Amino acid sequence: MTDSRKITLHENEMPTHWYNIIHDMPNKPLPPLNPATREPIGPEALAPLFPMELIKQEVSQEQFIEIPEEVRDIYAMWRPTPLFRARNLEKMLDTSAKIYYKYEGVSPSGSHKPNTAVPQAYYNMKEGVKRITTETGAGQWGSALSFACKAFDIECDVYMVRISFDQKPYRKMMMQTWGANVFPSPSDRTQAGQKILADDPNTPGSLGIAISEAVEMAATREDTKYSLGSVLNHVLMHQTIIGQEAIKQLEKAGADLPDYVFAPFGGGSNFAGIAFPFLHLNLTEGKTIQCIASEPTSAPKLTRGVFRYDFGDTVGMTPLLPMYTLGHTFVPAKIHAGGLRYHGAGAIISQLLADGFIGAEAIDQLESFEAGVQFAQAEGIIPAPEANHAVASVFRAVEKAKEEGTSPTLLLNLCGHGNFDMLAYQDYFAGKLEPHELSQNEVEEALGKIDTPTIKSVVDKLG
Amino acid sequence: MTDSRKITLHENEMPTHWYNIIHDMPNKPLPPLNPATREPIGPEALAPLFPMELIKQEVSQEQFIEIPEEVRDIYAMWRPTPLFRARNLEKMLDTSAKIYYKYEGVSPSGSHKPNTAVPQAYYNMKEGVKRITTETGAGQWGSALSFACKAFDIECDVYMVRISFDQKPYRKMMMQTWGANVFPSPSDRTQAGQKILADDPNTPGSLGIAISEAVEMAATREDTKYSLGSVLNHVLMHQTIIGQEAIKQLEKAGADLPDYVFAPFGGGSNFAGIAFPFLHLNLTEGKTIQCIASEPTSAPKLTRGVFRYDFGDTVGMTPLLPMYTLGHTFVPAKIHAGGLRYHGAGAIISQLLADGFIGAEAIDQLESFEAGVQFAQAEGIIPAPEANHAVASVFRAVEKAKEEGTSPTLLLNLCGHGNFDMLAYQDYFAGKLEPHELSQNEVEEALGKIDTPTIKSVVDKLG
Repeated sequence: MTDSRKITLHENEMPTHWYNIIHDMPNKPLPPLNPATREPIGPEALAPLFPMELIKQEVSQEQFIEIPEEVRDIYAMWRPTPLFRARNLEKMLDTSAKIYYKYEGVSPSGSHKPNTAVPQAYYNMKEGVKRITTETGAGQWGSALSFACKAFDIECDVYMVRISFDQKPYRKMMMQTWGANVFPSPSDRTQAGQKILADDPNTPGSLGIAISEAVEMAATREDTKYSLGSVLNHVLMHQTIIGQEAIKQLEKAGADLPDYVFAPFGGGSNFAGIAFPFLHLNLTEGKTIQCIASEPTSAPKLTRGVFRYDFGDTVGMTPLLPMYTLGHTFVPAKIHAGGLRYHGAGAIISQLLADGFIGAEAIDQLESFEAGVQFAQAEGIIPAPEANHAVASVFRAVEKAKEEGTSPTLLLNLCGHGNFDMLAYQDYFAGKLEPHELSQNEVEEALGKIDTPTIKSVVDKLG
Repeated sequence: MTDSRKITLHENEMPTHWYNIIHDMPNKPLPPLNPATREPIGPEALAPLFPMELIKQEVSQEQFIEIPEEVRDIYAMWRPTPLFRARNLEKMLDTSAKIYYKYEGVSPSGSHKPNTAVPQAYYNMKEGVKRITTETGAGQWGSALSFACKAFDIECDVYMVRISFDQKPYRKMMMQTWGANVFPSPSDRTQAGQKILADDPNTPGSLGIAISEAVEMAATREDTKYSLGSVLNHVLMHQTIIGQEAIKQLEKAGADLPDYVFAPFGGGSNFAGIAFPFLHLNLTEGKTIQCIASEPTSAPKLTRGVFRYDFGDTVGMTPLLPMYTLGHTFVPAKIHAGGLRYHGAGAIISQLLADGFIGAEAIDQLESFEAGVQFAQAEGIIPAPEANHAVASVFRAVEKAKEEGTSPTLLLNLCGHGNFDMLAYQDYFAGKLEPHELSQNEVEEALGKIDTPTIKSVVDKLG
């Protein structure tokens, strides 16, 4: 046989710690602000929503945090995930570049999301929490948390945007199979939901409304906490097992460290998962691995947004976070990569971008699917629409290498499969996917609406 | 960490040969008969439909047949597949039995089917075939063949039962993503299709019609061959890589050989895949591993059918094969496990059952989903409805062991995931799944219609 396609690790080679990049950042992320007073807030403000251990992790400056044995035991249901050498794709693209991809689609819910859902459910269980609430759009995050809660025998209430609840039964059924309670949002279970239903009984719902419902239920019940699938520091940290495994696997294959690392970018969790362990090598060993976030042209916060304090939600209820943002009221086009439609980037990612430690590029939906279909035909795996953005970045890098006559090593985080997204592929083949490049006017209009504190104003105040 | 959950093999530990059980059978399978003359036919009769190498394999008595390197190279995209110790399930069932499952859902199309689709496409390519036709119901087989044809750059024409084509777009899109041409059947591309459409333009189609179309296209075109996903000897043989890997993995885990091996049973290919290598140990080393086929109560050919010559298709165009059958005109209830609705069992399986080398039991759809949901909650993986039948058999064996106070080792072939079958789970949770036990009258009526030659008449004639 020719060289291996897959580089696998044994369960006992699984990393034992998460990597906390804050330890190595020359400029630490700025603190969150109280949404009303706009004063910096401490971790205690998060206590109604999250268990103490996750709050500690959110503000920790420890370089490595041990992964509990019970969490690693559940991880072992699918981890370590395979690293593939994309030999077929290299051949199809006729390139001398070496392409590797880390495949997170082997998890029970089919994406990287369980990497944080499992420890979140675990720490809640340890602190006696009986129920976790969350919101979900198409269902990627909700299904991961449903699986994780079942593993630790916690109730899971998922508020699913009503239009997805009605139109996307597959992931809803997946959540119910794992024992979760799935409610179409808005629901009549919360004050927030009741109010919206009173105004418009036929509303399709939105992720913002679903967040409000999930947070309200957690904030008003003693035995209930809330869980978030991206953006926050602890969530990003839990994902670093991806990149740590990849480094071990490249070593095992006798491969060079990558010149470029690519991942799709929504709130930042799968990008952080693969990139942070490589940035660790840059920050502590002087390596120069370029980590590039692939965001959609319809929500280009990293490439066209501003670095500013902004709310995490649409309504403006969450703490203000320092983020590259298009404004919390910005509504991106309804692209199929629902996981990438977020208006802002987490605090760590934003600081890293501001300081020049990571790069970003915007990919159009059409370009992403063109690349994704070619990837599927070469490598067999049909990527999730989110993942297609990073696949397109790999294709661009291959083109650039050809022009420059170089043979770089490229690493891609293939964060999930597209089994539940085949209708998106149907739209692609039917020629229904439209480019979604924002005009300069649209961007300026969005940014013009932002009235939250500037980074400078807070830095000056903090002294 | 506690013991491993997964037992994995490196690509270079992948079996190098398929195992041909015919070599070790004391009674070889009886020959097929010409559908018109009812005289035994030789391999040359298959030449219009299949490439020579597959025809040779169909009648080979060699014990092991080498897997071509190019086929193993494609297998390596997902093989060797993991063997899991179902520790969570054991705990949930509170059993001292050891439960292992071999998971074939990691393949690109999500089931064991590519194990034969890949070599079939390969041998066709080697013999200059430009196009392969096949039929598909829900799309499990069609998607596997689409993937395999793309790997060897062969055109793939899939005739998909019209009602599935209209109602189940996910797998259709999967096939198209891999470059296949998918036609709703009946189509106006074939004489068979045209005739049926002329009679009833709104027909929902059937697997029998789709077979007729696919066969007609292959039989009437020089550059086109036909491909079948189960039943035939060479198809079953290609699947034996599953059981061979499992034996290596049990050895690696230091585990005992299983006392029982369970697999769902439709045409026989996934059952053969896991069971034949264990039967090899029974037949050549005196082991006593019990291999049990789990068939649906709605199509109980192994437990309630007769051993008789019968047609492979509904219309009666294929050669007559010796099979346990309910009659080729028998129409089973529309259960969700579409892959198990076939009326008969392949020639090898039938001979093995007649000679007492394998066992079988019938499982009701409701019982199968009850077991499948518990499996999903314990092990994370949501099984395909077909696989749920064998999961239910494992549950029965666990109950029996408790009653008897024994601690057997059980091995399950989890032949595919249920990502594309979530609507079946929806029906289960909605209480819509009904028992489908055939009455004695229904069975007698079905068997009474069979007018094809008895086994005895052919044996007597052959002398």
